[in-house]
Amino acid sequence: MLISAAGPGSVPVASPTGAAPTDFVPAPQAGDYPIPANPVVAVCGATGAVGRVMLETLERLDFPASRVRALASARSAGTTIPYTGPGAPDSGQLTVEEMTPDSFQGVNIALFSAGAAITKQFAADVNAAGAVIIDNSSAYRMDPEVPLVVPEVNPADAHRHNGIIANPNCSTIQMVVALAPLVKLAPIRRVVVSTYQAASGAGQAAMDELYNQTGDFLAGRSFTPQAFAHQIAFNCIPQIDVFLPDGQTKEEWKMVVETKKILHNPDIQVNATCVRVPVLRSHSESVNVEFDAHAGKYVLSLSDVRAALASAPGVVVIDDPEHLDYPMPAFTAGRDEVFVGRIRTDPTVENGYQMWVVADQLLKGAALNAVQIAQLLLP
Amino acid sequence: MLISAAGPGSVPVASPTGAAPTDFVPAPQAGDYPIPANPVVAVCGATGAVGRVMLETLERLDFPASRVRALASARSAGTTIPYTGPGAPDSGQLTVEEMTPDSFQGVNIALFSAGAAITKQFAADVNAAGAVIIDNSSAYRMDPEVPLVVPEVNPADAHRHNGIIANPNCSTIQMVVALAPLVKLAPIRRVVVSTYQAASGAGQAAMDELYNQTGDFLAGRSFTPQAFAHQIAFNCIPQIDVFLPDGQTKEEWKMVVETKKILHNPDIQVNATCVRVPVLRSHSESVNVEFDAHAGKYVLSLSDVRAALASAPGVVVIDDPEHLDYPMPAFTAGRDEVFVGRIRTDPTVENGYQMWVVADQLLKGAALNAVQIAQLLLP
Repeated sequence: MLISAAGPGSVPVASPTGAAPTDFVPAPQAGDYPIPANPVVAVCGATGAVGRVMLETLERLDFPASRVRALASARSAGTTIPYTGPGAPDSGQLTVEEMTPDSFQGVNIALFSAGAAITKQFAADVNAAGAVIIDNSSAYRMDPEVPLVVPEVNPADAHRHNGIIANPNCSTIQMVVALAPLVKLAPIRRVVVSTYQAASGAGQAAMDELYNQTGDFLAGRSFTPQAFAHQIAFNCIPQIDVFLPDGQTKEEWKMVVETKKILHNPDIQVNATCVRVPVLRSHSESVNVEFDAHAGKYVLSLSDVRAALASAPGVVVIDDPEHLDYPMPAFTAGRDEVFVGRIRTDPTVENGYQMWVVADQLLKGAALNAVQIAQLLLP
Repeated sequence: MLISAAGPGSVPVASPTGAAPTDFVPAPQAGDYPIPANPVVAVCGATGAVGRVMLETLERLDFPASRVRALASARSAGTTIPYTGPGAPDSGQLTVEEMTPDSFQGVNIALFSAGAAITKQFAADVNAAGAVIIDNSSAYRMDPEVPLVVPEVNPADAHRHNGIIANPNCSTIQMVVALAPLVKLAPIRRVVVSTYQAASGAGQAAMDELYNQTGDFLAGRSFTPQAFAHQIAFNCIPQIDVFLPDGQTKEEWKMVVETKKILHNPDIQVNATCVRVPVLRSHSESVNVEFDAHAGKYVLSLSDVRAALASAPGVVVIDDPEHLDYPMPAFTAGRDEVFVGRIRTDPTVENGYQMWVVADQLLKGAALNAVQIAQLLLP
């Protein structure tokens, strides 16, 4: 389906962001996917952990849909999910439909959270029906034709798409929200990050496994890990996603390459260690930042760093050591923002700073970010 | 009590280690505290989490005591603890005695794990009775007259004491066991470490709190944190010990200054972020190491780093990504060694390496290290 770039509701091409173009920024495209003021939205993978939160978020943010549809595999078809936001059926219940190549007629925005293989399977059909895909999987994130968007960081990229916009990996999203205000202070040379990632990042079955396995552990019952490779109850697993030949995991690699792409900076160096911890749904990150010293050209202070974070969109600073106040994953579940605390100078390197970044993996790390991208597409 | 340095059983002064002397290495002392081949050992704080493991470790390692005594506060006096190692009473049960200034007559080695205030309260009495203190608290660690010893790293320092030898902080011990073989390859310029510390580091009450609070959480019962400042079940708390004026916690500061002291290198730069995670008794650490590049003088390879770790005393390398094999805290509880995995190059800095270090906080992080120091003192 091709519609004239001049047609009604065509997506305006964003003005340049000021950042030097890199290989990662796709060329501006014509507005082949016009989005009406009240679009039809399909949530694809609606019964998964992220899909459910996508629906909750559309409802909570009063996303101005004319209709919302819930698509999933045949297994879930016919079940119902409560939905009372704009575009809800009179019953207040969405009936889950089986996702097939014919599911997308009349859809304007398809929010996918069904895994990379499913997105790839259906992408051509979705685009042929005239719908834009906002995909939570890793399928297209590093495709140079596909923008990778965090609305607080690189919103203009959302308008340069060819029918697919990628939602970054959860651990990347919350880190770049905290890095974006800092790169406005001075170039960042290097980031060393260690993550404390919740079970939710591996889906609903993984959250259930942490919950149930912990009960089994306390009761002295035996259990067999399924969603995770090893016991997760009272344990830390220093592996998320598969291993790559260089000894990194794919999750660690994602943090490296996605950060470069989102920040439009192929030179920023990221070293990541990604660890699963027995937490239900918020990720935490210990982030060490080295700004470029440039022989004294950039001299920053802790106040500069604090002020930049405190005024950044989507960031809430919680950093009051005197009252033992800092972000913690158990208390940020269900919150939209990225929480930053333990902000301090790292005296072991020139222009070094350390911070602790926490966000709800299901919201800002996935569903909320996807819905925010959809908001960017509204005329 | 003063005994001639030439007397029987006097402690030999260690030969120089080859490391340049620093302010931290106390001058060699005369052997005022001779240790017989079968010393009398008192475990002070015997009913705490570490005290109990000290007794288990003395028994398990067949420490050649002629007598073992269990001392604690008046509250615990009269209770019994099973003990069948060398020096055990015929009953196989140690009766806990109240610790008083008069408790130490005839004692040769006093293993303290009762908190800094208690060690300070009794130190003069213990030394006056002729006993050497091996102290697990932070009371004397940074005293320039007191050696801070990890037997695999700086065993010679144990012989340069004035009646007190300090056991390092748990998070420091396991890190320096893994760093020590690396500093033999090339000088280390900077370490950035983020920890994943178990409840055991805060004592038995904290382990009980994690266990019971998790049960309360799963059952939907309310709970009030006591051992920790905040909920620990399914949470991460980015604070261990108190805050210092510069925004570091005291736990983070300990890792900085203790590492310099143990490695005899005031120039090694350490930046630490210490986080409590819902794990029962092994600490994990994500450790980023930058070797001094020295304009190409030191060129290391990943093989060099791996080989140094694999052959290091007290280290077990578990690093087989193909079989999803790496150290994890749930599976190293009860083990004596420091486990290292996820060893890889950090391409974001010259001569950079990343590793994941796990050890039982109660054993190598506390009780075992103390008993190993006692072993060093045997004639």
